[in-house]
Amino acid sequence: MVKLKGFQKLTPTGDALGMWLGILKIKKPSAINVPLSEALNRVLAEEEVTEESLPRFDRSAMDGYALSSEATTGASQFKPATFQLTKTNVISSKQAKQVWTGNPIPKGADAVVMIENTQKRDDDGIKVWKQLAPNENVSRMGEDIKKGEVVAKDGARLNPYHLGLLAALGKTQIKVAKNPVIAILATGNELAELGSEPAENQVFDSNRTMLSAMCRELGVEPKELGIARDNVEEIAEKLKNGLQQADAVITTGGTSVGGLDLVPDAVNMLGEPGVVVHGVAMRPGMPTALAVVDGKPVIVLSGNPVASIIGFEVFARPLICRMLGMKKEEPRPTIKAAMTRRVASALGRKTFVRVHAFEKNGEFLAEPISARGSGAISTMTRGNGFVIVPENREGVAEGEIVMVRLFAGLETSDIV
Amino acid sequence: MVKLKGFQKLTPTGDALGMWLGILKIKKPSAINVPLSEALNRVLAEEEVTEESLPRFDRSAMDGYALSSEATTGASQFKPATFQLTKTNVISSKQAKQVWTGNPIPKGADAVVMIENTQKRDDDGIKVWKQLAPNENVSRMGEDIKKGEVVAKDGARLNPYHLGLLAALGKTQIKVAKNPVIAILATGNELAELGSEPAENQVFDSNRTMLSAMCRELGVEPKELGIARDNVEEIAEKLKNGLQQADAVITTGGTSVGGLDLVPDAVNMLGEPGVVVHGVAMRPGMPTALAVVDGKPVIVLSGNPVASIIGFEVFARPLICRMLGMKKEEPRPTIKAAMTRRVASALGRKTFVRVHAFEKNGEFLAEPISARGSGAISTMTRGNGFVIVPENREGVAEGEIVMVRLFAGLETSDIV
Repeated sequence: MVKLKGFQKLTPTGDALGMWLGILKIKKPSAINVPLSEALNRVLAEEEVTEESLPRFDRSAMDGYALSSEATTGASQFKPATFQLTKTNVISSKQAKQVWTGNPIPKGADAVVMIENTQKRDDDGIKVWKQLAPNENVSRMGEDIKKGEVVAKDGARLNPYHLGLLAALGKTQIKVAKNPVIAILATGNELAELGSEPAENQVFDSNRTMLSAMCRELGVEPKELGIARDNVEEIAEKLKNGLQQADAVITTGGTSVGGLDLVPDAVNMLGEPGVVVHGVAMRPGMPTALAVVDGKPVIVLSGNPVASIIGFEVFARPLICRMLGMKKEEPRPTIKAAMTRRVASALGRKTFVRVHAFEKNGEFLAEPISARGSGAISTMTRGNGFVIVPENREGVAEGEIVMVRLFAGLETSDIV
Repeated sequence: MVKLKGFQKLTPTGDALGMWLGILKIKKPSAINVPLSEALNRVLAEEEVTEESLPRFDRSAMDGYALSSEATTGASQFKPATFQLTKTNVISSKQAKQVWTGNPIPKGADAVVMIENTQKRDDDGIKVWKQLAPNENVSRMGEDIKKGEVVAKDGARLNPYHLGLLAALGKTQIKVAKNPVIAILATGNELAELGSEPAENQVFDSNRTMLSAMCRELGVEPKELGIARDNVEEIAEKLKNGLQQADAVITTGGTSVGGLDLVPDAVNMLGEPGVVVHGVAMRPGMPTALAVVDGKPVIVLSGNPVASIIGFEVFARPLICRMLGMKKEEPRPTIKAAMTRRVASALGRKTFVRVHAFEKNGEFLAEPISARGSGAISTMTRGNGFVIVPENREGVAEGEIVMVRLFAGLETSDIV
């Protein structure tokens, strides 16, 4: 039987997230205008609909001569059609106009013949020995995207190609989601501030640095609340301060330590409904608690570094993505790979196995990271992905094909 | 036969990259010190070796009592061993000390018994009814990482877990690669500056915005050189200016347009060896040119937006990664997927097919994006990956398993 360390029951991850988000009822974020050049990786606040077509006009897709395709009917090397060159923007069926790739197609023309299929004549005319189809070598107006089409939906993370398309459409400002403020509080008498001289029995507070960076990875700049000592009043005071300044607070440490739940107790002092989930059926990260105080989310993560990472992955990532206006969590890249060896897991717990995924002879393999210690951060720096073993399994077998959720780069063959 | 548009021959992508990098001989970047809190996504400049072990001392991995495992030999529920509680940092084999997770193990102890396996007695002693192995429930000094071990190699992109591990080791400053300055120049009479009112036959310069964002994705802030008109002298002047300010220049447009190679000609005016590759066996991106001017790299990309993206992918990405000190290009996440339909490609060209990859019933599928126009940027915003068809293939078959190089998110099932 699983030891519950004082928990009445452990809540499955999905139930925990669903219940908590159900109480939170996260609102659509407010929108702010940013210049297009600063919009990379921001999340689109409103569906972006084109106000004009792209290309804005019929353009040549080749270097050649624009002309009427109908006038080339029957043209061949033995029986070329002839055209008079002109520089006007309107041409007759007997005329052609030299165009380069991207140039507008003159009125009266509907095709472009490549230079290779023509011969220039002395009299400023050309011979064309190829019959053209309508729109041949023409990029039609709206071919890339039409007026009224959706460039990207609200909740989309803007990548360089979105920005390119928006620039091509003439957009200079773009409405993106205002970033939520996420405050981070570390707790524990054993923690020494980074940069200080730690006492003999202290460890550096590394979780705060790490969780802050995990927020930044999602594009959100965190607010650091420092370290609270193992004292319910001090924790409550710092939490209260955090909730005033931030839209959500993430804590690390002080849950299920020495049989005490200092942070959950402090959270419950601050407002209703307080802690709504405490004890999650996952490993690591079992003592994680989820709370709501005056409508704001509080995530109480374990002080164990890896458990705090997994707790962030399972609860903070989905939360922050929704606060940014996404319909659901932004997916991490996921590959299928074969396990190089068996891994055991506890029945009834969703287990996050750290693996090093790699490519070998065109096959993806996942090598479990041997955990020298369950809380060892180095399992995350030596690995690049999670294999998530469901609650109803007691492990994964050697050779079994698993989904690997990548959190770092995967070495693959060169592309060039 | 493939029309070469004036190219004598097309160079295969791998040969082109190899030849060019061979001439460039990129030096190791210089290192700068940044605070750990600003090191996310920076590239490590020097191999980071631990100066001390983590944990720094033997720590308890559980809440319980630290004691000598030898003194529990033979202990059982029927024959418990007894220990006297103490608060000292050195204990005898008859003593035990209460510890919480993370607390140092006192001298004389080598194991921790969980509270559940003990009973407190009135006389400040405990009964222990479990036999312990040496190091049971103890995180040994150096278990996470040992003094002298490598945290991360030079050339590694620092993620939140690296930062967490470095913080745990007490690092406050970290040596990262100085970012190269990459200058970007757009060329073309048809280009209108974003924010201006374009003439009837103009298009907005979108490539510069896009290529700048692609640099930023690699962590490198670009320097924009504006737009040069289709005039060799003007292009040469702006290029020269760019080469003075930057470590590399990327241009877009003015290669193989209207039978003219304005940018390659301008590059060749500036210094030796000038253009070393012009015309690459790839599609799109065939008119790409690679140059070296006074030891600095110049990449001449097509003006076609998608061709410029692929040219960046194949040449600028590997270049910038190496300028950041990586041994090879930083890989994009790559998955295996089944093609939903056949796609044709040209023999003799490495072809970059844009696809939309997605998961369906646990299978990965890749749906080719129907290119309404070969230069349509929307093929990149509607897709999320490339399938790269090698030069010796004429396409990929329906149902064929291909590697998809992801450039945007892939929707997968929820993890929780």
